[in-house]
Amino acid sequence: MPGTAFRVDQSKSMREQDVPGHNRWHPDIPAAAEVRPDDEFRIECKDWTDAQVGNNDSADDIRDMDLDHNHMLSGPIAVAGAEPGDLLVVDYLDLGPAHTIDRGAGDAPGQGWGYTGIFARDNGGGFLTEHYPDAGKVVWDFHGRSATSRHLPGVRIASNVHAGLAGCAPSADLLAEWNRREQRLIDTDPNRVPPLALPPLETGNLMGTLTGAARDRAAREGARTVPPREHGGNVDIKNLSIGSRVFYPVYVPGAHFSIGDLHFAQGDGEISFCGAVEMGGYADIGVGLIKDGMRKYNVTTPLFQPGRNEPRYSEFVSFIGISVDESGDQHYMDATIAYRRACLSAIDYLVQFGYTGEQAYLILCAAPIEGRVSGIVDIPNACCSLYLPTEIFDFDIRPSATGPTYRDRGQCALTS
Amino acid sequence: MPGTAFRVDQSKSMREQDVPGHNRWHPDIPAAAEVRPDDEFRIECKDWTDAQVGNNDSADDIRDMDLDHNHMLSGPIAVAGAEPGDLLVVDYLDLGPAHTIDRGAGDAPGQGWGYTGIFARDNGGGFLTEHYPDAGKVVWDFHGRSATSRHLPGVRIASNVHAGLAGCAPSADLLAEWNRREQRLIDTDPNRVPPLALPPLETGNLMGTLTGAARDRAAREGARTVPPREHGGNVDIKNLSIGSRVFYPVYVPGAHFSIGDLHFAQGDGEISFCGAVEMGGYADIGVGLIKDGMRKYNVTTPLFQPGRNEPRYSEFVSFIGISVDESGDQHYMDATIAYRRACLSAIDYLVQFGYTGEQAYLILCAAPIEGRVSGIVDIPNACCSLYLPTEIFDFDIRPSATGPTYRDRGQCALTS
Amino acid sequence: MPGTAFRVDQSKSMREQDVPGHNRWHPDIPAAAEVRPDDEFRIECKDWTDAQVGNNDSADDIRDMDLDHNHMLSGPIAVAGAEPGDLLVVDYLDLGPAHTIDRGAGDAPGQGWGYTGIFARDNGGGFLTEHYPDAGKVVWDFHGRSATSRHLPGVRIASNVHAGLAGCAPSADLLAEWNRREQRLIDTDPNRVPPLALPPLETGNLMGTLTGAARDRAAREGARTVPPREHGGNVDIKNLSIGSRVFYPVYVPGAHFSIGDLHFAQGDGEISFCGAVEMGGYADIGVGLIKDGMRKYNVTTPLFQPGRNEPRYSEFVSFIGISVDESGDQHYMDATIAYRRACLSAIDYLVQFGYTGEQAYLILCAAPIEGRVSGIVDIPNACCSLYLPTEIFDFDIRPSATGPTYRDRGQCALTS
Amino acid sequence: MPGTAFRVDQSKSMREQDVPGHNRWHPDIPAAAEVRPDDEFRIECKDWTDAQVGNNDSADDIRDMDLDHNHMLSGPIAVAGAEPGDLLVVDYLDLGPAHTIDRGAGDAPGQGWGYTGIFARDNGGGFLTEHYPDAGKVVWDFHGRSATSRHLPGVRIASNVHAGLAGCAPSADLLAEWNRREQRLIDTDPNRVPPLALPPLETGNLMGTLTGAARDRAAREGARTVPPREHGGNVDIKNLSIGSRVFYPVYVPGAHFSIGDLHFAQGDGEISFCGAVEMGGYADIGVGLIKDGMRKYNVTTPLFQPGRNEPRYSEFVSFIGISVDESGDQHYMDATIAYRRACLSAIDYLVQFGYTGEQAYLILCAAPIEGRVSGIVDIPNACCSLYLPTEIFDFDIRPSATGPTYRDRGQCALTS
Repeated sequence: MPGTAFRVDQSKSMREQDVPGHNRWHPDIPAAAEVRPDDEFRIECKDWTDAQVGNNDSADDIRDMDLDHNHMLSGPIAVAGAEPGDLLVVDYLDLGPAHTIDRGAGDAPGQGWGYTGIFARDNGGGFLTEHYPDAGKVVWDFHGRSATSRHLPGVRIASNVHAGLAGCAPSADLLAEWNRREQRLIDTDPNRVPPLALPPLETGNLMGTLTGAARDRAAREGARTVPPREHGGNVDIKNLSIGSRVFYPVYVPGAHFSIGDLHFAQGDGEISFCGAVEMGGYADIGVGLIKDGMRKYNVTTPLFQPGRNEPRYSEFVSFIGISVDESGDQHYMDATIAYRRACLSAIDYLVQFGYTGEQAYLILCAAPIEGRVSGIVDIPNACCSLYLPTEIFDFDIRPSATGPTYRDRGQCALTS
Repeated sequence: MPGTAFRVDQSKSMREQDVPGHNRWHPDIPAAAEVRPDDEFRIECKDWTDAQVGNNDSADDIRDMDLDHNHMLSGPIAVAGAEPGDLLVVDYLDLGPAHTIDRGAGDAPGQGWGYTGIFARDNGGGFLTEHYPDAGKVVWDFHGRSATSRHLPGVRIASNVHAGLAGCAPSADLLAEWNRREQRLIDTDPNRVPPLALPPLETGNLMGTLTGAARDRAAREGARTVPPREHGGNVDIKNLSIGSRVFYPVYVPGAHFSIGDLHFAQGDGEISFCGAVEMGGYADIGVGLIKDGMRKYNVTTPLFQPGRNEPRYSEFVSFIGISVDESGDQHYMDATIAYRRACLSAIDYLVQFGYTGEQAYLILCAAPIEGRVSGIVDIPNACCSLYLPTEIFDFDIRPSATGPTYRDRGQCALTS
Repeated sequence: MPGTAFRVDQSKSMREQDVPGHNRWHPDIPAAAEVRPDDEFRIECKDWTDAQVGNNDSADDIRDMDLDHNHMLSGPIAVAGAEPGDLLVVDYLDLGPAHTIDRGAGDAPGQGWGYTGIFARDNGGGFLTEHYPDAGKVVWDFHGRSATSRHLPGVRIASNVHAGLAGCAPSADLLAEWNRREQRLIDTDPNRVPPLALPPLETGNLMGTLTGAARDRAAREGARTVPPREHGGNVDIKNLSIGSRVFYPVYVPGAHFSIGDLHFAQGDGEISFCGAVEMGGYADIGVGLIKDGMRKYNVTTPLFQPGRNEPRYSEFVSFIGISVDESGDQHYMDATIAYRRACLSAIDYLVQFGYTGEQAYLILCAAPIEGRVSGIVDIPNACCSLYLPTEIFDFDIRPSATGPTYRDRGQCALTS
Repeated sequence: MPGTAFRVDQSKSMREQDVPGHNRWHPDIPAAAEVRPDDEFRIECKDWTDAQVGNNDSADDIRDMDLDHNHMLSGPIAVAGAEPGDLLVVDYLDLGPAHTIDRGAGDAPGQGWGYTGIFARDNGGGFLTEHYPDAGKVVWDFHGRSATSRHLPGVRIASNVHAGLAGCAPSADLLAEWNRREQRLIDTDPNRVPPLALPPLETGNLMGTLTGAARDRAAREGARTVPPREHGGNVDIKNLSIGSRVFYPVYVPGAHFSIGDLHFAQGDGEISFCGAVEMGGYADIGVGLIKDGMRKYNVTTPLFQPGRNEPRYSEFVSFIGISVDESGDQHYMDATIAYRRACLSAIDYLVQFGYTGEQAYLILCAAPIEGRVSGIVDIPNACCSLYLPTEIFDFDIRPSATGPTYRDRGQCALTS
C-alpha cells in the first residue's frame, strides 16, 4: 500500500523536491516510485510552470515566463508487471488543489488560488494570438469546488478538476518518431513566431533523478511536453475529471506513468494556451493493467470513460463558427478556423455586456464551455459550435428584445 | 393564426406540391407564406433528397443520387415586419417525422423510417471518403422517439430530432460574397474529386414559385445549399432539437426563412455527409423579432439556446485524435485531422466487436456522439475527442481485461 | 401490424366512439382490439373526464364535475399469448396531445390546450383541500413540447408527457380483494367528506362493449379507477414519459391492457387531484412478454425503467417539510404530512412574489417539481423535500439579500 | 480569515478535543468559534457515533451502540451580526472524509473507510425493522469520490457527500415547543419499542464548553439530535452536497450554527436509520446573512438550492409502492407505507440476483437511490416510487426475458 507515491512541497521548486520530477519525455528517466496493479495512491503536483506566476494584479510574470521549464511533471511511476502493448488503466479517484479555500495558505498556485493567462504572441501565443497579442492574466480564488476572480466580476465557475497532462513514457523508437515528424514541420517555417513546434531543448531540462552524461544525452533527445501525442500527454481534455478512467498505451517495461498540469477548471480548447485555471495539487489514482490491450482493442491512443462528477449546467448561449477566416477568405473544411470564429463571436457578444475582449477571452478559457465539431462534411465549411453556460454569470446574458445590459466590468491583469 | 404555413404531401416530389419549395438560396424567391411575430405554425418538409432513397437493402440509390436536386427546402416564410439587421427568433417547439411508427405508412423517408448513407468518393464523398470510397446505407425503423436498424444489429438510438438546415435568405450582396469566396477556393483545384465547393448550378434548380426569366437568372446566381454560412443554413448542429431557440440574422425585408433536411438523429460532425438519420417530417415553430439585434448583440452569425429535451446518456467510451495524419505526418493545429483520427480510432475499436468498418462509420454518423475540440493550443497538435454512448448498444462495449466480445454483426447495405 | 389499435374522435364522448372504452376495472370487459408481442401501435385517448372541462376562464366546470364518469380509459387491448403470472412489457415509444399547437384545433382538452384543476372539498378534494376548499382552474396553451397559461403569467413548463393511468385487468379474485380492503377502510368513517375511498358504483359506468345483464353485473363489481393498485392503474408517476419501459403484472389471459389519463406535464404528487396538465391525445407503444416474469423477478407490482427524454432542469429552490402538522402537533414518521408541509412552504414562498395561494398550488401541481422522501428514519419526524425548478419562471425566484420582487400576477380561474 | 473554525483530532473522542462539540440542542451552549459574514472556513467532524463503530466484520458494535452519545456535532459557530429572524446563508463549498483513500489512515470512520448499519429493533430500529430486526453492517472502502464494500460484492457507488445534520440553535421558546410536542407523542405509547420519540436525556450529554450547574440544567432540557425539526437539524437530505446553498432560520443572536453526521453517500430515506455511508471528515463552508429573511420570504424552515456536483446516473430500475400494508390492509394516503412497500419490492427483486435481504436493504440505504412521492391524491392510495441506479452494479440488473442471474453474493456483517 504505497500511500503518497510522489510528494511535493509546494513552497519549493520541483528541482528541490526530495525526489524531483521531470519536464521532458524520455524512456531513460528512472522511476521515482513503484506501485502494483490495484494499488491506489496519491501523486502531488506543482503547477505546470513550477510557480512562476504570482497571486497579484500584473501580467508581467506571464509575459516574462521562462517556458523552457514547463511542464513540471510528477513521476515517473513504475507499475509492476506492465509491458509494452499493455493498456495501463488509470482511475482518477479524486483530484484537487493543494488548498480548496484560503486557510492560511502559501503563495504557490493551488494554495487556495489559481490563474489563467494569455501568453504574449512572441512568448508562446495562443489560439487568438493574432487578436490578443499581449500578455494578460486573471487570478481565481477557490471556494471549495467553485472559483471566482477579482478580475472577472460577475463570474463564478464550478470546478471540473482534471490533469491536463498525463501518460506513459515513450519507447526510444516512438520518441525518435515524435522528434522526426515534428522537426519536419518546423523545417517548413523555422523562424515562425510563435513557432510551429518545439524541438528538444537542453536548456531548463529536469530529468528526474537522472544525472551526468546520461541526463545530458536524454535532455538532448527528450521530447517537449507541450503537445499531446499518441501516448496521451498534454491532451487538456476537461472531461478527464473525478471518476474518469483512462486506458493509456504502455511502451516501456513498467509503463513509467507521469502526470502534471493540474487544472481546477477549463473549457473545451483551453484556448489561451495557459487557458485553464492552473494550479498545483494532488491526484488520487488507482492503477490496473489490460495485458496486450493495444492489440485486443486495436488502439494506438488512449481511450477513456468520463466520470460521473462533471458539474451540471443546463442553460447555454451558443455560438457558431464556419471555416471562413476573419478576412473573409474561404477555407476547406477547417475545423480549427471554424472553432476560432465561434470563439471570436462569443467574445464579441460578451463585450456588449461590458467585459473587455481580454476578459471575455479568459472566460472562454476557464469556464466549462462545450466546444463541438458540429458539421464536418458540408463542403467547404466546417461548422463548430461553442456552448457558454449562462449560469456562471450573476446577471442574465440571454438575448432578449431589450438588448444586453452594459456595465463597466473592469479589466484583467495586464503588463506594466 | 396560420396553422400549417407550408404543406407537403410526402407521396409527391417537392416540385409537385401545391406550393413548391426551393433548393437554392436567392433573395428573389417569393415567399410561400407570411406569418407575424408571435405566430406559431407548422412547416412540413421532404427529406433533403426529395425521396431519392428507398427503404431497401441496396445502396445503389445512394451511389446514383442526383445531388443537383438537394436540399429540398420548405419556404421561404415571410415574417411581417422583419428588416435587415434584425434577429429572427425561432423557437423549435416540436419536430418529428411524418410518422413516428410504421402505421400503414408510405414509402417516403420519414414515414416510419429513415436512412443514413455513405456517399461514394466520386459522388459527394464524406469525412472518411479516402477510407470508405464506396456507397453504403443503413435503414432505420422508427419506434416513437427511438430507432433501430436491421443493418446495425445491437444498436438502438434515442432521437435528438432537429433540422439540419434552416436560415433566412441572403441579400444580393451577401449572396455575391458567398459565390465570390467559394469560387476563389474552387479555382485553386478545379478538378478535385470530391470538389472543394459547389458553385451555382442551373441544372436541377427549384426556385419556389419563381418562373421564367426571373427564375433562370436566380438559378444561375443562387447559392447551393450544402455549406453552412453566416446566415446559418446547413449547420447540421444536433443540439438544435426540441425546445431550442435560434436567433437568425435577417438580410432581406420579411426575413424569408426556409427550413429542411430534417434529422431524426445525428452525432456531432454528421461525418458521412449523409450522416444523419434522414427523413421528411414537420417542424412546429414560433417566431419573434429582436429589432436591430445584430448590432445590439454584435453578431453576424446565428446564436442559439439549446432545448431541454436532448436525450440523456451518461456513459461513454471516448476516443482521442491529434493532428498527425494517417501517414504519420505532422500537421499544425489541425482540428479537422484530429477529429478524423478520433473517428478512425472509434471505428477500429468497434470492428473488434464484429461490426464492419462501414457499419461502425455509420454508427458514428447517426448515434448521438459528442465530438469536442478538447485542446487547440498545444503546438503542434490539436486534440479532439469523441464520446460514444455505451447505452446505445445491447452488449457491453467498455474495455475490460477480458477483451472485446467478437460476433458477426452482418453488414450495411452495399451497392450491386 | 395493427396501426392504431384504439381510435378516438375527440369531438365525441368516449361513449359514442365506434369502439367505446371503459371507466371501471373488471375482467369481463371484452378486448377492444388484439395485438401480438413485438407489435407497435397507437392508442388514442380522451382526457380523463371525457371533456367535461372547457377552455375558458371559469372553474364552474371543475366545481360541477361529475366524477362518476372518470377515468375514461382506452382499451382493453388483448395481447396474444399473455397469461397470468407473466410480465407485460410496455415501451412508451411516444406520447403527445391530440394537437401540439393550436392549429385550428377543436375544443376538447388536448387539442392544443390542457387544464389543471383544484377540486372542491365537497367534490373530490385534493392534497391541500383543507387549505384550498374551493374549485379553481388554469388553462394551458401548448407550444409544441412546452406550455404556458394565461392564468399563470411568468411560467413556462417543459412537457414530461405521460399516461397517468395504465395497467392490466385484474382477475376476479384480485378485484374482490380490492373491493374488500377498500370497503373496510370506508367503513371506518363512511360519511367523511371527501370520502376515504370510492366503492363500486353503477351510476355512470361504461363497460366497453359489454351489454345487458353482464354489463350490469360487472358495473356493480367493477373497481373505480381512482387509486393506483398493485396492477399499476392510476399511479400518476411523472417519470413514465417517452422512452420509458414498464413491466406490468398480468392477471387474466390476454393481459387486457388499458390506458388513459394522459398528462402533458405534472410534478411529483399531482397534488390537487386534477393536478397534471390534463389532456386527450395518443400513446404509441410497443409490447412484449416476460413469461412467468412475476415469479422470476419476485414482483407483485409494476417495475419500470424511466426513459431518456425527461426535460432537463438543473436549478432549483427547494423546500423542506417534517411530520409536524399545521396545528403544531407531532406525528410519527408521517411522510404524507411532511410532504404536505413542504408544499405549503413552497406556496408561502411563491406568494411573496405575487402569486395567489391558488396559483402557487397549481404551479406545484403541473410544473416538473421533484418530491422526495429524504429522511424516513429519524424519529419522530419524516423529512420530505420539494424541488421547484427556477427555470420555469421568467423572473428570478432565488432567495437573495434584497428579498423577493412582488408583482400582481393575477389569479387562476375561479367559480362564479 | 478564520481558517479552520472547529478542529477535530479523529484519534480522540469528541469529548477530548481541545474545544469539544455537543450532542444536544440548547441555546445556552457557548459558541466554539466566531466567524463573520463572507468568511469561508473549515469545520472538522467526528462521525455521528463518535467512533463507536470499527472497520471489521462483525455487527456487534452496531448492536451494542450507546445511542445516548449521538450525534456528536461540531460547533456552535457564532456568526457576527446574526439576529433572530435572519436567514443564515450557508454555502457548502466542499465536503469530504478525513481521508479519501486509505493512505496509512487511522481506524476512525472517515479515515479511508465508512460504514452503514442496520440498527436492531430494540436499539433504535429503522424503516424496515419489523422485517430486519437484527443488527447488521457493511464497511465501505473509499476510492477517492467512490466507494466499494467487501460486504457487497458487485457494487460501486459514487459519493454524494453531505452533512446529514446541520442547523442553528433553537431559542428557549422553540426548544420548549419541541419538547412539549414530542412528549405529547411519547405519552400516547410510552413503552413502545422502538420508542415514538426521544425525550431530553442527561445521560451521555456533551454540552460543549458549558460546565457545572448550567450544563446540568441545559442537559436536562436539551433536545435530542435525532429528528429533523424546523431549524433543519438531522434532515438527512442527500442533495445537500457540494455546491449547495442552504438558508437556515436564525433563532438566537449569533445564529450558533452546528454541523455533523457527515455522509460519504446516501439514498433518499436513509432507510436503516444508520443508513448512510457514515464517516468523520470536513465541511468547508461560507456564510452570509439575509437580514429579516424569514419574514421577507415567509419561511419557517430551511430553504436550499442544490449544487451542481451530484453524481450523474441515467439508468434506473424503478419500483412502486402503494399504501396497502404487508398484511393487505388498506391505509388512507399513507406515503410512509407506500415508500416502505416500494423499498420491500426493491429488496425482493435484488434477492433474485443473490443478495441477502440484509444486503439489499443496505444497498438501498447507501446507494444514491431516488425516492419520490409520485401520487398523493388518488384516494385511498398514496403512490411512492424508488429509482435504483443500475450503473452501481457490475452486472446487469435490468429485467429481461431470460430472468435474473443468480449468484451467491455473500452476506453483510452480522452479530456474534
